[in-house]
Amino acid sequence: MTVVICRQLAPVMADLAANRELTCAAVGESIDAGAQLVILPELITSGYVFESMDEARSVAITPDHELFADWAALAAKGSAVVIGGFCETGPGGTVYNSAAVVDGSGVLAVYRKLHLWDTEKNFFTPGSAVPPVVETQHGRIGVIICYDLEFPELTRSVALRGADLLAVPTNWPLIYCPEGERAPEVQVGIAAARVNRMSIACCDRVGTERGQEWTGGTTIISESGWVVATADEAGIARADLDLTLARDKVLTPLAHVFGDRRPEFYGALTAKD
Amino acid sequence: MTVVICRQLAPVMADLAANRELTCAAVGESIDAGAQLVILPELITSGYVFESMDEARSVAITPDHELFADWAALAAKGSAVVIGGFCETGPGGTVYNSAAVVDGSGVLAVYRKLHLWDTEKNFFTPGSAVPPVVETQHGRIGVIICYDLEFPELTRSVALRGADLLAVPTNWPLIYCPEGERAPEVQVGIAAARVNRMSIACCDRVGTERGQEWTGGTTIISESGWVVATADEAGIARADLDLTLARDKVLTPLAHVFGDRRPEFYGALTAKD
Repeated sequence: MTVVICRQLAPVMADLAANRELTCAAVGESIDAGAQLVILPELITSGYVFESMDEARSVAITPDHELFADWAALAAKGSAVVIGGFCETGPGGTVYNSAAVVDGSGVLAVYRKLHLWDTEKNFFTPGSAVPPVVETQHGRIGVIICYDLEFPELTRSVALRGADLLAVPTNWPLIYCPEGERAPEVQVGIAAARVNRMSIACCDRVGTERGQEWTGGTTIISESGWVVATADEAGIARADLDLTLARDKVLTPLAHVFGDRRPEFYGALTAKD
Repeated sequence: MTVVICRQLAPVMADLAANRELTCAAVGESIDAGAQLVILPELITSGYVFESMDEARSVAITPDHELFADWAALAAKGSAVVIGGFCETGPGGTVYNSAAVVDGSGVLAVYRKLHLWDTEKNFFTPGSAVPPVVETQHGRIGVIICYDLEFPELTRSVALRGADLLAVPTNWPLIYCPEGERAPEVQVGIAAARVNRMSIACCDRVGTERGQEWTGGTTIISESGWVVATADEAGIARADLDLTLARDKVLTPLAHVFGDRRPEFYGALTAKD
């Protein structure tokens, strides 16, 4: 079993030093509590609601920043893997909405968000590479960010590439949700887990930032598509998952999650509308 | 607004005459009650749990069977469209798990299930054409059947081809579901509706057939991804839907359901594992 902990934090807007401290404390506590995978929100090092490109650039970092060395040092203590979002320095003053996968040896992979939500397009350059599926000591970890989850072609493609667990750092803006219903993004995650037989861990954020309220919808979903943990009052969601179950896509002797696909009839997917 | 009615019936196993009567009564009642779209379960003319190919063949029909003329005559009374599953006669003694789209003029389209579930593979020949998206007087209606819904590539491709509403005749075998949760197939439908901004109407069946229990999970979902109707005690689910909302894929001035896709990064979808 793998102990997965999501930490639903609230970053300090545009304060890299404060967020370095915040994330290191959360990662350290989680590993002390037994976490083997620690997942943090989208843009947890920077905050989300930028007022200008200059502000975004002021907190943008590269994967060789010492913050990741801190995460790596903490990860090394517990043989853990840490996945968290950050604002990444791009070429020529550009910035990416990125996520890093870090273990005791350092940064294993960086993912740049492919699907930018709404006004993110005013700040970030979209990614230009498929999401990583990283071979770690705790299984094959896929990484996407927030709005990416709403593209079932993407979650399917990550599953087809062998991910056991999909880590999804998010910042879900609070939207309408009828009483008693889960946040719609969570419902999309549940479906993605079920149809791909792949665990999914969405780590959301909390707080209100420059008037923007957040959902606080952190949810860990098993490969069977059932919710196994949501954030407690401290913003911690913890689940013990058998990630190897995702490798068996057999549903019955005559039914297989991938084998039953009929790709020759999904043609419209490759055209853009 | 379009009045959509799903009739969650229990067919009489392998009794075409009885099921002709059953479906005509349900379609007639629904249209009398104002239905403009009437949706019936998968294989409603035949039952599901066949014991032999001979039994399946004994109730297999072609689209020119008088049963569809009956449905068309009823549809004509109310300018309605009827979608229902049937066991279709194929060439050389084969059979298909099919669904027909019928209006007052007759059969508009026939869809042959692409993704056969489990032991269906022992009886049915899989379809070899994409699901129809039928231009009707009540909008563009896409049709898939049951297990097809579990392939998000397929629901996406139907949405990209312009469906306003996806009709899903189903026979959902009863499976484990924790107290208080919706059937997992419904959760997949909710996600498919939301991420595609397309209404989805799943018409399930009830009863126990040769020991197989059914879910009775009939659910109508709006293009926003919210459940708007489930079957009442009489097995009737009714919703008034504005199907034109599905044609507007704009989420914000800077976000678009289809325009935000990055098809060049979904490559693995075209390979079969």
